[in-house]
Amino acid sequence: MADAITPRSKNYSEWYVDVVRASKLADYSPVRGCMIILPNGYALWENMKQVLDRFFKETGHQNAYFPIFIPQSFFAREAEHVEGFAKEVAIVTHSRLKVTEDGELIPDPDSKLEENLIVRPTSETIIWDTFRKWIQSWRDLPILINQWANVVRWEMRTRLFLRTMEFLWQEGHTAHATREEAIAEARMILDLYAEFAEEYMAMPVIKGVKTPSERFAGAVETFTIEALMQDGKALQAGTSHFLGQNFAKAFDVRFQNKQNELEYVWATSWGVSTRLIGALVMVHGDDRGLIIPPRLAPTQVVIIPIYRKDADRNAVLEQAEKIRRQLIDAGISVHLDARDEYRPGWKFAEYEAQGVPVRIVIGPRDVEQQTAEVARRDTLEKTSVAIEGLTEQIQTLLEDIQKNLFERAYQFREAHTTRVDSYEAFKEVLQTKGGFILAHWDGSPETEARIKEETGATIRCIPLDQPPEPGRDMLTGKPSIGRVVFARAY
Amino acid sequence: MADAITPRSKNYSEWYVDVVRASKLADYSPVRGCMIILPNGYALWENMKQVLDRFFKETGHQNAYFPIFIPQSFFAREAEHVEGFAKEVAIVTHSRLKVTEDGELIPDPDSKLEENLIVRPTSETIIWDTFRKWIQSWRDLPILINQWANVVRWEMRTRLFLRTMEFLWQEGHTAHATREEAIAEARMILDLYAEFAEEYMAMPVIKGVKTPSERFAGAVETFTIEALMQDGKALQAGTSHFLGQNFAKAFDVRFQNKQNELEYVWATSWGVSTRLIGALVMVHGDDRGLIIPPRLAPTQVVIIPIYRKDADRNAVLEQAEKIRRQLIDAGISVHLDARDEYRPGWKFAEYEAQGVPVRIVIGPRDVEQQTAEVARRDTLEKTSVAIEGLTEQIQTLLEDIQKNLFERAYQFREAHTTRVDSYEAFKEVLQTKGGFILAHWDGSPETEARIKEETGATIRCIPLDQPPEPGRDMLTGKPSIGRVVFARAY
Repeated sequence: MADAITPRSKNYSEWYVDVVRASKLADYSPVRGCMIILPNGYALWENMKQVLDRFFKETGHQNAYFPIFIPQSFFAREAEHVEGFAKEVAIVTHSRLKVTEDGELIPDPDSKLEENLIVRPTSETIIWDTFRKWIQSWRDLPILINQWANVVRWEMRTRLFLRTMEFLWQEGHTAHATREEAIAEARMILDLYAEFAEEYMAMPVIKGVKTPSERFAGAVETFTIEALMQDGKALQAGTSHFLGQNFAKAFDVRFQNKQNELEYVWATSWGVSTRLIGALVMVHGDDRGLIIPPRLAPTQVVIIPIYRKDADRNAVLEQAEKIRRQLIDAGISVHLDARDEYRPGWKFAEYEAQGVPVRIVIGPRDVEQQTAEVARRDTLEKTSVAIEGLTEQIQTLLEDIQKNLFERAYQFREAHTTRVDSYEAFKEVLQTKGGFILAHWDGSPETEARIKEETGATIRCIPLDQPPEPGRDMLTGKPSIGRVVFARAY
Repeated sequence: MADAITPRSKNYSEWYVDVVRASKLADYSPVRGCMIILPNGYALWENMKQVLDRFFKETGHQNAYFPIFIPQSFFAREAEHVEGFAKEVAIVTHSRLKVTEDGELIPDPDSKLEENLIVRPTSETIIWDTFRKWIQSWRDLPILINQWANVVRWEMRTRLFLRTMEFLWQEGHTAHATREEAIAEARMILDLYAEFAEEYMAMPVIKGVKTPSERFAGAVETFTIEALMQDGKALQAGTSHFLGQNFAKAFDVRFQNKQNELEYVWATSWGVSTRLIGALVMVHGDDRGLIIPPRLAPTQVVIIPIYRKDADRNAVLEQAEKIRRQLIDAGISVHLDARDEYRPGWKFAEYEAQGVPVRIVIGPRDVEQQTAEVARRDTLEKTSVAIEGLTEQIQTLLEDIQKNLFERAYQFREAHTTRVDSYEAFKEVLQTKGGFILAHWDGSPETEARIKEETGATIRCIPLDQPPEPGRDMLTGKPSIGRVVFARAY
């Protein structure tokens, strides 16, 4: 039997960890804050990677790979960047272990490095140091690079996928001749991220701009997609940064423009990570476990044969295998679990916990009547379906589940998005139903900080797609040009 | 113009570095011993990964991901393993930078770790620590895991792709109920590696077993594929280890067998790395640069339009684009380089340096006569080909280049494989033509060490596929049961 899952209503954060483990996505490791991504989790990440990688390549980006280590001195170059990252980095200081006379294993003092190396928390510094060598003239621009890599940030409080010391991600780094082109790139990537979140993860997102206090360390502007989890908390699902000329100046990267003048290069960087897996769990999961949107599911359909009498075994397995082949030929990813040593009930619970979108059960009567029992994971509905035309029905069902998951998440978000005009109402909503709160803000960091301090809510973003709506800050009464999105967040 | 490439005959190792850089596979980084894998190199690695990943999945392996950090104490567990790796590891000792009163950036002494973390040089220890939690009964076996990851080994003398401090690789780790099953797994993987090397990289390899002195630290038996480079030196291209119960004992991983007895689990591990890219360069490259076997080439065909008069431009480009579409529809990977700012001669040299297998040139006369000039990278032959049937011709040509590259490398290896029966002849061959030398060895580590000491040659492997042939050690005259493969090696 799959491990027992704490109900959401009882303890949401225990539920989350239970689902991640019961669905075999990931587990704790002996290294504090680092996780082991299990085969189910890694297969999901591979599917995510494949779609995103295609998106990036279709828009002209190329993959490359930069060193995991960054010389310590590079961090001192961009002032805000070091400020933002210095507190959470793994520092390599020695290159050799040795056994002491007492038989103890220690770093060999003779191997102390001349310059310490930082395990990359992000790669702007080493990449811009390299761009200096690549860029001389406007002909060398734009440079559109992406990297799939692991990064390390020394987090104190970690949670599987959502915040881990090491995580996997992609980081895009681009260099442009003009400010406009760089901003257009950062915005285009934001749109790709939103498309991926909504069309593949079935997770509705709000696109917006971060306030200065929530910006990436070293960015001029940070664009973000923000999603709402089932506990009413927000999650930043991806960010795209317009870096201005900050890194070009820090690493002295200039180019000769068409007028033969030397100019600093304009930059963007952007990334999504294995955190998306945590978001997927929290947006769609239920008390039985994970629910994976069909377009990303490593296994879209599981077939479970059922028989009591040995005499039925062959006919049932034969039919199950026939269906498996048909579905595979239609490009559906199928797993037939014919193991005798596990009971059907155990298998049902197991694949529900793992979030497989569709379950097909074949028993002796199904063989006789040329039917199959089809259960959908999102609504748990079961129907008996004729074998003839089954493949088409499954295809339609998979599309339907994909749509339904988005729709359900969208409805949840709508139901948990509240417009408030007073600070009392704001606090009241935060206490009762949570979710996104649309409120006026006067644009000052002080007001933002006070609200965060008093309520734990932060400005998730200033939404991009909204009509102008003048108003007054709910706290200070000062004028505001439009509502911003507040929430408590992961 | 592509950077000048030192001819092989003048200085082979300069030639190698020149080719890697001129073909834009990789470049040096500001971190000593770490390289930057450029888009061309990474695209080649992606193609290699794709084939290997399919091989592994087809044989029942699943991908997962384990932490990059390994607690220092884990290294002390397997005695030979620590001996083998302790001298070349990156050690993380602090988790925070701070700015001193003098404005200097230093590791914050307050952030010193309780237990140091080692950046993985390979993951046996952390994976076997995890397997202990996964394995209770024979029902949990086998476990067939693979991981695509970066690893770090603190090498003193590094060379792009061949020996770098950080490299990318896959590492397989499997757990089995019996010794026989584990050995069969290690052998099966060796066969997959050999198939990949020969069928995809067009690189002939010898499959064999390492002598004890050349074994992986912690293995009972190391299987290897050995390839011959154009300078007559050998290169170990992939290894597969039968680990016996060594790691199971070090990490106390036992399972209940079918007889209800507790037994230690049997293990394998195996890996190939970005080093394969270095091998590919050295097996096929020539004085113009890289030659990529078509089955792995990110760009299989480059089309270069030529025109002097603006009046010809449209017709030439139209024809070039038509051919590009046709080839793409046939599943061929094509790049049309229509840039006006570079001259055709520059482009020819550039794509030759980058190793694109086939070049198609279209000029005004070609448009008129419905022909195209087709040049193959391996032999540099040029022919005029009719547009009608061009796609089929290109398909055949790509297959032919793939075969020819293998055949050429195979002939080279045959011509540089010598059977010797005396130590004098051995040294003579090493001095003059190098290559693989098949000689008798008495099986003692002392003889092996003396030969290495005196000649620089090592036993690359004891070949698996050879008839028994009794003889006498060329140095000691003691009896031998068969010849082993000697060579100087990378």
